[in-house]
Amino acid sequence: MKTKHVIDLESLSVSELMEIIELANEIRERPQDYAEVCRGKILATLFYEPSTRTQMSFKTAMLRLGGSIIGFDNPQNSSVAKGESLKDTITVVGGYADIIAIRHSLEGTAKAASLYSAAPVINAGDGGHLHPTQTLTDIVTLYNEKQTLDNMCIGLCGDLKNGRTVHSLIKTMSHFKGNSFVLISTPELSVPQYIKDIMNASGCRYSEVRSLAEAIPMLDVLYMTRIQRERFKSPEEYEQQKGVFVLDTEKMKLAKRDMKILHPLPRVDEITEEVDYDDRAKYFIQTVYGMYARMALIIKMLENADRKPMPRRFDTHNVRCSNPNCITHTEPYLPKIFRALGGDMLLCKYCEGRNLI
Amino acid sequence: MKTKHVIDLESLSVSELMEIIELANEIRERPQDYAEVCRGKILATLFYEPSTRTQMSFKTAMLRLGGSIIGFDNPQNSSVAKGESLKDTITVVGGYADIIAIRHSLEGTAKAASLYSAAPVINAGDGGHLHPTQTLTDIVTLYNEKQTLDNMCIGLCGDLKNGRTVHSLIKTMSHFKGNSFVLISTPELSVPQYIKDIMNASGCRYSEVRSLAEAIPMLDVLYMTRIQRERFKSPEEYEQQKGVFVLDTEKMKLAKRDMKILHPLPRVDEITEEVDYDDRAKYFIQTVYGMYARMALIIKMLENADRKPMPRRFDTHNVRCSNPNCITHTEPYLPKIFRALGGDMLLCKYCEGRNLI
Amino acid sequence: MKTKHVIDLESLSVSELMEIIELANEIRERPQDYAEVCRGKILATLFYEPSTRTQMSFKTAMLRLGGSIIGFDNPQNSSVAKGESLKDTITVVGGYADIIAIRHSLEGTAKAASLYSAAPVINAGDGGHLHPTQTLTDIVTLYNEKQTLDNMCIGLCGDLKNGRTVHSLIKTMSHFKGNSFVLISTPELSVPQYIKDIMNASGCRYSEVRSLAEAIPMLDVLYMTRIQRERFKSPEEYEQQKGVFVLDTEKMKLAKRDMKILHPLPRVDEITEEVDYDDRAKYFIQTVYGMYARMALIIKMLENADRKPMPRRFDTHNVRCSNPNCITHTEPYLPKIFRALGGDMLLCKYCEGRNLI
Repeated sequence: MKTKHVIDLESLSVSELMEIIELANEIRERPQDYAEVCRGKILATLFYEPSTRTQMSFKTAMLRLGGSIIGFDNPQNSSVAKGESLKDTITVVGGYADIIAIRHSLEGTAKAASLYSAAPVINAGDGGHLHPTQTLTDIVTLYNEKQTLDNMCIGLCGDLKNGRTVHSLIKTMSHFKGNSFVLISTPELSVPQYIKDIMNASGCRYSEVRSLAEAIPMLDVLYMTRIQRERFKSPEEYEQQKGVFVLDTEKMKLAKRDMKILHPLPRVDEITEEVDYDDRAKYFIQTVYGMYARMALIIKMLENADRKPMPRRFDTHNVRCSNPNCITHTEPYLPKIFRALGGDMLLCKYCEGRNLI
Repeated sequence: MKTKHVIDLESLSVSELMEIIELANEIRERPQDYAEVCRGKILATLFYEPSTRTQMSFKTAMLRLGGSIIGFDNPQNSSVAKGESLKDTITVVGGYADIIAIRHSLEGTAKAASLYSAAPVINAGDGGHLHPTQTLTDIVTLYNEKQTLDNMCIGLCGDLKNGRTVHSLIKTMSHFKGNSFVLISTPELSVPQYIKDIMNASGCRYSEVRSLAEAIPMLDVLYMTRIQRERFKSPEEYEQQKGVFVLDTEKMKLAKRDMKILHPLPRVDEITEEVDYDDRAKYFIQTVYGMYARMALIIKMLENADRKPMPRRFDTHNVRCSNPNCITHTEPYLPKIFRALGGDMLLCKYCEGRNLI
Repeated sequence: MKTKHVIDLESLSVSELMEIIELANEIRERPQDYAEVCRGKILATLFYEPSTRTQMSFKTAMLRLGGSIIGFDNPQNSSVAKGESLKDTITVVGGYADIIAIRHSLEGTAKAASLYSAAPVINAGDGGHLHPTQTLTDIVTLYNEKQTLDNMCIGLCGDLKNGRTVHSLIKTMSHFKGNSFVLISTPELSVPQYIKDIMNASGCRYSEVRSLAEAIPMLDVLYMTRIQRERFKSPEEYEQQKGVFVLDTEKMKLAKRDMKILHPLPRVDEITEEVDYDDRAKYFIQTVYGMYARMALIIKMLENADRKPMPRRFDTHNVRCSNPNCITHTEPYLPKIFRALGGDMLLCKYCEGRNLI
């Protein structure tokens, strides 16, 4: 792997992704061969926002490689939250640990951490922005369950506006050949324009539909996500529409025999419990693929990890990012770094928010 | 061991219990021989209700076998508590871990978890219902400190009505030969009728007394438990009676020279601090026996663990359990499963509550 | 090491300190040689008061020696806090773990714990009293960064009245040859008289100054600490004076080329972020030295650990310590033990508070 940190899956090439997928499968087939490869190595799980599920997956991955864990999942109780800057915490923890997985409610936090960490940083979720190891999980699952990552008709159902896992999966799958997307949501929760731009740019066909039952017969893969009740216009509309986006055994009768159902979990009620017994339901085994995906990622990242000893300086901009959820607002010492998009547009390198100068 | 999960110690035969006790002693004598037997194995400690003591004992046991730990002890902070069903959590964790210890405030939770877990499940306490590893701890202690599990006069003092460890110890000791019980409590806190039925059915003699001083001279073992202040009829009655159930050095003068004192801990004030220096006090070494007991149990359970890959379906009943603390009320998808007791009586297979149809 | 427990660094001789420093350096040079020396050993981190930083340092130290960890950092959630005495908790955990690191908000807690623990106890901070492993961290840093512990002019800046790390560093450095101290603080926050007595008794020169800029040119070492806003007489005085005690790049221009900056961390704003890029800033590498210092301490303490099996009795005094923050007030069973200082003065052996009879 060329990059030291994994903040966004987009920084990995398709061939690097394939290497991780293949390593994940190799570990799954011969776990004993990998049971000691991280002996003596420490993963720090810095969870500023609790996520038992994701944290357990990372911990299990590291422990099954023979490594060990430090970290926190409850910063309210910790000195970390009391006035210490992200930079100082990361500088110190980067001196203790060999690799860091960080989760935070603000966008761009993992990127900010990577500026100061001697140890490689994995983004374990930064607010509504990115969650690359979930997407890695998704594509390891697809590769194993469909034996390909090409030429699939992929349905995505639920909250397509706010779902970072949906955006990230579309971006990644659009790098592979011949995939098309069926976007199943209410008009209010449809995918943002920039995701449509990506599909258009990569030549992927897509359609937007309003009913899961209508879409399901054509799908090779159905990626379900949660719709939060408060995302609907009104409680009445929620009550009226919710059934349209719930996967049940009736709708499964309309699906292809080899369609696979994925879900990033946790689910609430968008998939009924009876569907669990359908052998096309892959959302539980998906979490096991996720463990192997994280094992493979950790191995690859530790292989080539240089450990820079001291914080570097960065050139800073005189513009402040306008996204109120960007980490630069609570950590004011962070250098303001942007990518020029042309015209008067700047892209914040932390949260990827667009700023008009 | 024939059973995959250990929800209730009653599911183990006397010879299986003896095997665990003997293995615990073997580990205690030669810990180095067992220091790597669980290398590469992961115990998940899922503590929906905090219990630092029990959790530490499980963790220590697994670590001293060379294994490692994932889990939580603070579900308020975790995604686990936020809307995800027990079934989904257990299905996922059962894919990460090799063995699960679960504690919950609702009765029947461990049984419910065992329906969906690929990994073997240990009940680490389900509300006021069962706590089998405490009882295992108690009998490993007795066997080592008394060199037998037969023909003892066992006193149980404190809250005998609500104390699950008391009920469980009586049930287990009534399977061994010639034991008798002296039940020391207020009338309001005496043992439930079903425990008396068990003693009668197994031919164990028992008596109920109101004073520890009166009972203590005849005892081979004294099992002390906490009485919560609020269990008394009134604050006045508490003040009047509390001394009657407190073990102090005066009462110890009345006891046999080889009587052993056990207590599941934590204690509050039912044993005075001076008693700690009496060499008949075994409640601290009891926690060390508990660690070896859990080590032995983990080894036995991992030896024959099949890992079923997928949730099974269960036949469900149209009756709902009437116990308001039964896990079936908060996890409505659970199949309603009962054992017919004859007449119109059904026994809930989760909480063992009796239901009249 | 002669002492079983490390409650106060004063209980170690200078030659014992030097042995720990040298072992820390040896581990730093050849970490692989020490990666398995604590295999099978368990460290319990009992943090009654959260301190993510210190806890992570201890955990990392033990894990990098191949050992493992049990413990808690959130006693509010745990049965430990609910009515159980420190004595009982320590007795039980001393049976599970091989070594214990304890932190508590009350003074004397680590000493109290050491009375009942079969396992050696390390004081990881007891209120405003002692924090010996921080001082060990500081001297390992000094020894490596200055190549000596003698003949240095050491500046200490900030809250010198309440800063336990400052007191402890002065005490320790006064055992080495030819050190002098420059004490930089407001009059209200100057070092207590007993620390001046120690410097006088050991023949160390010291001066008290009111301005960091004035003091900095003469220093070989600058030990910065935090001043809490509320420590100033009034908000106005805080606003007026705060700049005087802030280290910035301007003041660094006045310092010697080989002056080293230390800080126990976390910092708030007493060192500006720009100073981090000055190669004289050693406060981040200091945390790495701290990890090696704790590794060395753990090895030394486990080498000669006897494990006494049962609590001992202690003679008790009829005087109660008058320090309201002394652990003896919340744990009333603790024996009252004092050292006679002459006259009518008694020194509490827990908190070192002076008591006039």
